[in-house]
Amino acid sequence: MTSDEQWMAQAVAEARKGIGLTSPNPPVGAVIVKNNIVLGKGWHQRAGEPHAERKAIEDASTSNGNDSMKGATIYVTLEPCSTTGRTPACTDGIREAGITRVCYGSVDPNPAHAGRADAILTNQGIKVDQIADTTDCDSLIRAFAKVQNTGLPWVTLKSAMSLDGHITRPTGEGQWLTSPESRTVVQRMRYESDAILTGGQTLRVDDPALTIRDTSLPNKPQPWRMVVTQGDKASLPPTAQLFTDTHADRTLVQENGDLTTARRTLVAKGCNSVLVEAGGTLMSAFLRAGLADEVALFYAPLITGTDISAFAPLPEDIPLADPTYTRIGNDILLRASILKTEN
Amino acid sequence: MTSDEQWMAQAVAEARKGIGLTSPNPPVGAVIVKNNIVLGKGWHQRAGEPHAERKAIEDASTSNGNDSMKGATIYVTLEPCSTTGRTPACTDGIREAGITRVCYGSVDPNPAHAGRADAILTNQGIKVDQIADTTDCDSLIRAFAKVQNTGLPWVTLKSAMSLDGHITRPTGEGQWLTSPESRTVVQRMRYESDAILTGGQTLRVDDPALTIRDTSLPNKPQPWRMVVTQGDKASLPPTAQLFTDTHADRTLVQENGDLTTARRTLVAKGCNSVLVEAGGTLMSAFLRAGLADEVALFYAPLITGTDISAFAPLPEDIPLADPTYTRIGNDILLRASILKTEN
Repeated sequence: MTSDEQWMAQAVAEARKGIGLTSPNPPVGAVIVKNNIVLGKGWHQRAGEPHAERKAIEDASTSNGNDSMKGATIYVTLEPCSTTGRTPACTDGIREAGITRVCYGSVDPNPAHAGRADAILTNQGIKVDQIADTTDCDSLIRAFAKVQNTGLPWVTLKSAMSLDGHITRPTGEGQWLTSPESRTVVQRMRYESDAILTGGQTLRVDDPALTIRDTSLPNKPQPWRMVVTQGDKASLPPTAQLFTDTHADRTLVQENGDLTTARRTLVAKGCNSVLVEAGGTLMSAFLRAGLADEVALFYAPLITGTDISAFAPLPEDIPLADPTYTRIGNDILLRASILKTEN
Repeated sequence: MTSDEQWMAQAVAEARKGIGLTSPNPPVGAVIVKNNIVLGKGWHQRAGEPHAERKAIEDASTSNGNDSMKGATIYVTLEPCSTTGRTPACTDGIREAGITRVCYGSVDPNPAHAGRADAILTNQGIKVDQIADTTDCDSLIRAFAKVQNTGLPWVTLKSAMSLDGHITRPTGEGQWLTSPESRTVVQRMRYESDAILTGGQTLRVDDPALTIRDTSLPNKPQPWRMVVTQGDKASLPPTAQLFTDTHADRTLVQENGDLTTARRTLVAKGCNSVLVEAGGTLMSAFLRAGLADEVALFYAPLITGTDISAFAPLPEDIPLADPTYTRIGNDILLRASILKTEN
């Protein structure tokens, strides 16, 4: 790794602290370095609060004084913003701090902003470079980028099944197939999502809570819970946990199985990422219509006697790309992107 | 690792060269060591040919002379034989070579032999030790041990499927789901098996060859091919490859779906290990009756549109033990033992 890559890796680590917290903004991290010393670092914590660059400058200023950053480099996972929104433009903050080089990761996916910071900073005599390998930085903003580019959220289909592709129930909350370790990973996935989407049938059969119960995770508001039902809301049991628990105001219902309106509604609520935890019918509806971006499938080491499939039959194969397999306890988690033809 | 463990690991590596070749005997390896120098090594190559100990002694004698072994230790993966069968007793060979210590791995699973070598060698003034961790040695002889203990072969159920547990055809020879890398592993699995078992329905639909076609593997005779059909032999297509190719004399048929007779027939033919490559009905018949010892399941990174399951519905869950997951190309291979209640 070059030293640029090493510092950028630190900025990525900062950014990751914000995953699940920043929507509709993306998670962003920044590190300010001079003479191979980290002067300050920061990450974007919540929409409306300072950007990562401002947090890093504040940190450097507090720890090392206002003048410490003269001639420093700032590493930031996303191209700095150049416009004043709810917070002032980061390009101004960088110049005012005396920073003389910006090394950034991803280009701003908003076409109105993309590349603008380059010109503004360069005109001010600040050297601007993009890191060579933007993979990790791009991964941080994939959900944000999808909303910017399409107006629709990033959709992850999550399921847990036996080795022969069966689930004991339409979704797994009632009777788990997988290990406690896998359930901990699912809690983290919920924490990192802005919304959790399930189906009316799952609500009726399982009555899931879809909450974050792992107390080792930092506090965050309950993600939105969206129930997509084929019928109308009256067909759903009013006593379901989603309608009666302390987070009932975070439950939305989409009627008529309309997945496009469901996704647009969630974007309007500020969601970038949606985790689908549902039975085979709804899972396959997402796949068939090409609406999902990735799958996260947990396999437990058993072959089941049930015939309830994790996916309903599909008219054609859905090939997946870039599979990663992670052992979790005695289970395996497959994550992969969905290769799309056209939406 | 202690030095005993290091030398035993070499003996295990020798033994592995014989996997798939030695039935009805087990694969065995031996290494002769004196003053931290390997004097000779050997492995059992075929039933009726010299045992590993004799091969190692011969190797040491050729390379270093007959007298070199005086005071040496022999590491052997299985307790030496103490009786004369098709070849003379290894305990005699060890004594005659002047070897003064035997360190062995597994105890002979044949109750008539188990532990006998200990007493015979000790009475001759030869020190005898068993290695502390016999896991690798025991694994080498698991199929042999099962035949010794039960009269039935070790059965591995192999299948290749999509992530949702579907196969495109009753078995995968016609249209592969999995990658070329996985197919190479399957070739190795066939090579290491004494017999390959499939079902009548697979024969009719797929007409598989069930041969070893990977020319990078050492030569060995075609494993037995056993077709289990629910009906009688006349119900099978006489033009099938298994009945007409150059290995047609290595094809057996079991009528009436009788899996017990099928397995006993294979043991009578000298088979210790059987690889089942079949469709869901036969796979689940093995599972339901508790006749299989392990599964080897390949998963390809796609979700399929078919509804042909790799396993037919089962009356109850089949839990698996000690799962290992190995990435092979873009596929994953799960191997696990089947936890049995009672056969």
